[in-house]
Amino acid sequence: MPDLDLTASSVDLTRAICDIPSVSGEETTLADAIEAAVGALPHLEVVREGDTIIARTNLGRAQRVVIAGHIDTVPINDNLPTRDVDVDGEPHLWGRGTVDMKAGVAVQLRLAAELVAPRVDITWMWYDHEEVDADLNGLTRLSRTRPELFAGDFAILGEPSNGQVEGGCNGNLRALVRTTGVRAHSARAWVGENAIHRAAPLLARLAEYRPRDVEVEGLVYREGLNAVRISGGVAGNVIPDACEVEVNYRFAPSRSAEDATQHVRDVFAGFEVEVVDLAPGARPGLDAPLAKEFVAAVGAEPKPKYGWTDVARFSAMGVPAVNYGPGDPHLAHHDQERVPLAQIVSVERGLRAWLSAS
Amino acid sequence: MPDLDLTASSVDLTRAICDIPSVSGEETTLADAIEAAVGALPHLEVVREGDTIIARTNLGRAQRVVIAGHIDTVPINDNLPTRDVDVDGEPHLWGRGTVDMKAGVAVQLRLAAELVAPRVDITWMWYDHEEVDADLNGLTRLSRTRPELFAGDFAILGEPSNGQVEGGCNGNLRALVRTTGVRAHSARAWVGENAIHRAAPLLARLAEYRPRDVEVEGLVYREGLNAVRISGGVAGNVIPDACEVEVNYRFAPSRSAEDATQHVRDVFAGFEVEVVDLAPGARPGLDAPLAKEFVAAVGAEPKPKYGWTDVARFSAMGVPAVNYGPGDPHLAHHDQERVPLAQIVSVERGLRAWLSAS
Repeated sequence: MPDLDLTASSVDLTRAICDIPSVSGEETTLADAIEAAVGALPHLEVVREGDTIIARTNLGRAQRVVIAGHIDTVPINDNLPTRDVDVDGEPHLWGRGTVDMKAGVAVQLRLAAELVAPRVDITWMWYDHEEVDADLNGLTRLSRTRPELFAGDFAILGEPSNGQVEGGCNGNLRALVRTTGVRAHSARAWVGENAIHRAAPLLARLAEYRPRDVEVEGLVYREGLNAVRISGGVAGNVIPDACEVEVNYRFAPSRSAEDATQHVRDVFAGFEVEVVDLAPGARPGLDAPLAKEFVAAVGAEPKPKYGWTDVARFSAMGVPAVNYGPGDPHLAHHDQERVPLAQIVSVERGLRAWLSAS
Repeated sequence: MPDLDLTASSVDLTRAICDIPSVSGEETTLADAIEAAVGALPHLEVVREGDTIIARTNLGRAQRVVIAGHIDTVPINDNLPTRDVDVDGEPHLWGRGTVDMKAGVAVQLRLAAELVAPRVDITWMWYDHEEVDADLNGLTRLSRTRPELFAGDFAILGEPSNGQVEGGCNGNLRALVRTTGVRAHSARAWVGENAIHRAAPLLARLAEYRPRDVEVEGLVYREGLNAVRISGGVAGNVIPDACEVEVNYRFAPSRSAEDATQHVRDVFAGFEVEVVDLAPGARPGLDAPLAKEFVAAVGAEPKPKYGWTDVARFSAMGVPAVNYGPGDPHLAHHDQERVPLAQIVSVERGLRAWLSAS
């Protein structure tokens, strides 16, 4: 098992944990290393649940903050081990996981070791299986087996946000929209009904759709409705009797899951619609007192988060939550994934300042 | 090896050869049986090439007719062995191959044995691999290795035509029509360009397309332009950068392959079009003297053939060709494939009458 030195710099720690591959489902080696490292710290109570490690201070503070990060990555594509690279004269760490989201985890590990007497009690969570089915997500599991561990007044996820505070997130709905027809030999097409041709107005509605911009608690969320997959066809000489379009609707956190479903049904009125995945968004929660203090302390202008992240899970459990982490989210999952070293340092400084302030 | 009794009735012979499965690529057992049966007939010169059997009379007649049928079938789907069934009070033989096209082959085998002194010389051809890629087709192979065997003044294919004479066939073109876009995370769709949405006008053109009816030598051919497959998409959270529609254009035999290609390019102007398969049609050829005599002798009203068949191959080699066989082409490849016994007998009678007439 590799040794993690939690007194190393956040940059060195990022490099170390990126170089321990942990594609979803293969997090055990890294989880073992994290458990061993934080287990050695007397100011933390450590719980392990699968490959999720929870480390808590129990200082009797009036407030508790949950700070969480997932330790898995999407598959490696020839982008490990990490390398130091320069982009436009700025030093970066390049490689799988540097952005999504081991730099954020490294900062958290470093501060978990360093901050023996923070101003609030802290529950650190490093969890598995974030990049795959929500059912497998370590937090899903933990919320069933140990819901009491989620107790807190505020939560911070270290998801990449360019070192800015990103509040809330859009909801996420996936649906299958279908057309049907009648199969026939394509030499006698008039005997059949072409299900792919019948999808023409369906695609036209998508192409013409104008998504909304929605302001929620001062932040503007951009929605989106998109086809992400289309399939249909039986054989090169058969009129197809079925066509299926998978659509993905990203909706502002002011819209409920029910409203979102109704909206998609309205847009595709006349077609068969089956919702296959539905996660409500999260309001930014920036009016919570701890959130206001946090934003002031790290000195950032809050922005909306467009992608769905686990902040929605905390939000749904009544804990206001934001994203705050190094790295450009546009480079998450990218083969040229890389994080500016300055952002790692800046997020570390921001978190430390707020957690240490008296 | 099963024994074939070529003195049996065409109906019994159909049953016998259907019950020797011969899905494309697995024709050897049936080809062996046919070779042994016709090889025993002194009035025929037999050539074998792969699983294709050629049997010729050499009577020094002024004219030669090629009569051909493929011995392979599409895959069996729980529809063998054959069964005798009644449909609307009419006796049928049910099972894979009964329509496409072992009833036709059975009639040919029966007459090959019986007609020791026909009015024209006959080249019988029973060939493999018709139901798969044209490259594998026994006639494709034979046209390369033994082109002289195709010599003839007229050709008859026993493809199912409901016991009618069907002349010529439509041409067949398959093309891939593509749209492209720019990939992006679907939470930030405005960064990308959705290739599936861009296919909306492509499908609209297909849905609005009105195919022509084209008269060629007195027969009316119905054209058709259809999507037979559509695919696009990367993942449930990615704006797709590519969408591909496979279209199938069936065009009248008066239109050349070049014209057909240009027509498809015109219809999809503005999109990327790649023609992946192109087989010209065949004019009906019913103005050839032997064809006229044949139509008169079997007493049928000629009709156009919509599907592409190997008559086009003969047509391209300068041999006028028609389809004439028992069975409803709509039931070809059907799991409930079945042929009326009366049509087998009627086609046998028609062919015999014409070939025996002095």
